[in-house]
Amino acid sequence: MPHSPRRLHEAWILDHLRRQGRASRAELVAATGLSRATVSALTGELLAQGKVVVTEPTRETAPGRTPQSLALNPAAGLVLGLDFGHARVGVVAADAAHAIVGSATRPYPHTTPWDARCEIAVRLARKMSAGDVPRLAAVGIGIAGSIAGRAAVVDAIRDAFTSAFGVPVRTDNNARLAGLAESVWGAARGVPDALYVRLSSGVGGAVILDGRVHRGRGGAAGEFGHVCIDPAGPLCRCSNRGCLECYVGVEAVLAQSGAATLADLGAALDRGDREASAVVAAAGQRIGLVLAGAGNVLDVPHVVLGGDLAMLGEHLVRPVRQTLARHLHADRAATVALAELGDLDGALGGVALVLQDPSIPFTGPLAPRHLTGTA
Amino acid sequence: MPHSPRRLHEAWILDHLRRQGRASRAELVAATGLSRATVSALTGELLAQGKVVVTEPTRETAPGRTPQSLALNPAAGLVLGLDFGHARVGVVAADAAHAIVGSATRPYPHTTPWDARCEIAVRLARKMSAGDVPRLAAVGIGIAGSIAGRAAVVDAIRDAFTSAFGVPVRTDNNARLAGLAESVWGAARGVPDALYVRLSSGVGGAVILDGRVHRGRGGAAGEFGHVCIDPAGPLCRCSNRGCLECYVGVEAVLAQSGAATLADLGAALDRGDREASAVVAAAGQRIGLVLAGAGNVLDVPHVVLGGDLAMLGEHLVRPVRQTLARHLHADRAATVALAELGDLDGALGGVALVLQDPSIPFTGPLAPRHLTGTA
Repeated sequence: MPHSPRRLHEAWILDHLRRQGRASRAELVAATGLSRATVSALTGELLAQGKVVVTEPTRETAPGRTPQSLALNPAAGLVLGLDFGHARVGVVAADAAHAIVGSATRPYPHTTPWDARCEIAVRLARKMSAGDVPRLAAVGIGIAGSIAGRAAVVDAIRDAFTSAFGVPVRTDNNARLAGLAESVWGAARGVPDALYVRLSSGVGGAVILDGRVHRGRGGAAGEFGHVCIDPAGPLCRCSNRGCLECYVGVEAVLAQSGAATLADLGAALDRGDREASAVVAAAGQRIGLVLAGAGNVLDVPHVVLGGDLAMLGEHLVRPVRQTLARHLHADRAATVALAELGDLDGALGGVALVLQDPSIPFTGPLAPRHLTGTA
Repeated sequence: MPHSPRRLHEAWILDHLRRQGRASRAELVAATGLSRATVSALTGELLAQGKVVVTEPTRETAPGRTPQSLALNPAAGLVLGLDFGHARVGVVAADAAHAIVGSATRPYPHTTPWDARCEIAVRLARKMSAGDVPRLAAVGIGIAGSIAGRAAVVDAIRDAFTSAFGVPVRTDNNARLAGLAESVWGAARGVPDALYVRLSSGVGGAVILDGRVHRGRGGAAGEFGHVCIDPAGPLCRCSNRGCLECYVGVEAVLAQSGAATLADLGAALDRGDREASAVVAAAGQRIGLVLAGAGNVLDVPHVVLGGDLAMLGEHLVRPVRQTLARHLHADRAATVALAELGDLDGALGGVALVLQDPSIPFTGPLAPRHLTGTA
């Protein structure tokens, strides 16, 4: 806990940079509520101490005026984000300034046991981190499916990475991490509140309130895919009935449409196939209905659609948007955007997870340390 | 903003007492994360300064050990909470220590215009506050129905009370205030997260996260009654279709059951009438389904049922509990409790609203000030 107001205000600035990556002084003023003079003085000190650096401006403004962006010192450490999907692991390496310095994926058969998945992932992570920046500070790991009630798997993954790298390891559900990544780098950047839904074989998501992922008491918030659409509906793999996922998971949508792949379905939509349109409209309506329910309860005006199904683009966005407009209460409106980060969103979220963890320090250059073991 | 760590920690303690009323030192340690020694030293100072007082112990523990409860100094001011329902206004007077010092209600025909309602309420409020404690510090007012989009009504009410009493006036939706009151004095006291649903003619509610009411970006969170159950359902008074309120509002339940009043329906349930049981079971299932949806998205394990329909007690709680158990994802569970505060819950919430408002000071005894005007 900070021990003086100056330290407290410094902590607010560092906290914002840890959560959002680069930010201009004006953005820091808006985010912290501190005065321009205070932000200017404190960032000056942080720059002098090497805790913060000036980065490239994010975009050109008026000629001769390129506002400086600040970020944590990239030399403060390298972090790895991993995402264990059902059939592949993705890895992203980033520095403390939120700059991505590398990424890779390795496929595995979906029957691969967890110890073998961890071996594949550790080998890939070693290869990526041993290269140009041997200063690993933390690892953030996303796992497909619910984390709650799977302590054994989570512990095994954490143990494998802790013993391989000897740094703090954090884990979370990969759909929630994908939502976090969208809020840092993607379609919900700069928006304080957002609902993120990831529509793949499984359907999950994240609730972002005040720029943070809402985790819930049991650490399991964001399960949009298991909101019940029809109590008399089909049995879901979660053992409940009529969950959203039963209707709008990729396999369900393909089965309804008769298309073999999402690419085929997208092509059918593009040429105006009526049956394909009806199937995707129905899926969008169901997704919109669940989001409208959450929107009425939470009053969150921004929605992001991600996952494999989001490749259907406007064909999917349109019915979701219309259903939200129809079922949000009173004058409320919500914007609907497609996710921007693609296949490595969960791994990026792993990076964001550890960069914003207050128990892991990222302030000031670390002495180089070598990874244990070899690639 | 506090200017030293000591002031900051003091502010945390005062903030907790402002939100929760009385608390023991042990509860303050748990709530603030400060050490026992720090809490002891700071509360000692606050007691010496007269900002905080020792109150009656809330309950007997082992003989000879009655832990002291602390609260804000009741002399710091009187507050009034009001609730404008469709057919009556309720008023509660409380001191800064959260002790209720009086309450009253006045009926009015539901056709009464807002200026006449305000006159009735101001007269009643004057009568109550001019009596034993002429030190009004603030007024908190609940209003039936959505606040968003009704700026004219809200402004008129605020103006009437500001000009009558010359103190800060705050307003909110009365269902949300009822939920806030339950979290301070009632069925969600001491629980950090809870979902509250108020089931009367209208159906509203509140989302409580980390001990605070979640307001949402537009200030309109908690609209459980307008979550869509069936997009092809009946037209709701909100102009959307198939809202929960259409099925489980009091009038709808009475119409389905054929009972003239809720008391008649309760009597039918108590004597095991099958038709009445089926109607209430269906209502409970629909309420449970909407709460399970919110529970899956938010992972909140405590639910409070309030409003007129809650007088059906276990007959209503049972199907809600069963439906939650069936449709909450994975191993999650939620407790379901009946609201405890009765008809003045909205007015109590008005009290809580102003007592926790950081812009209204309640620290230390005020010089007595007389109310403007007379009763």
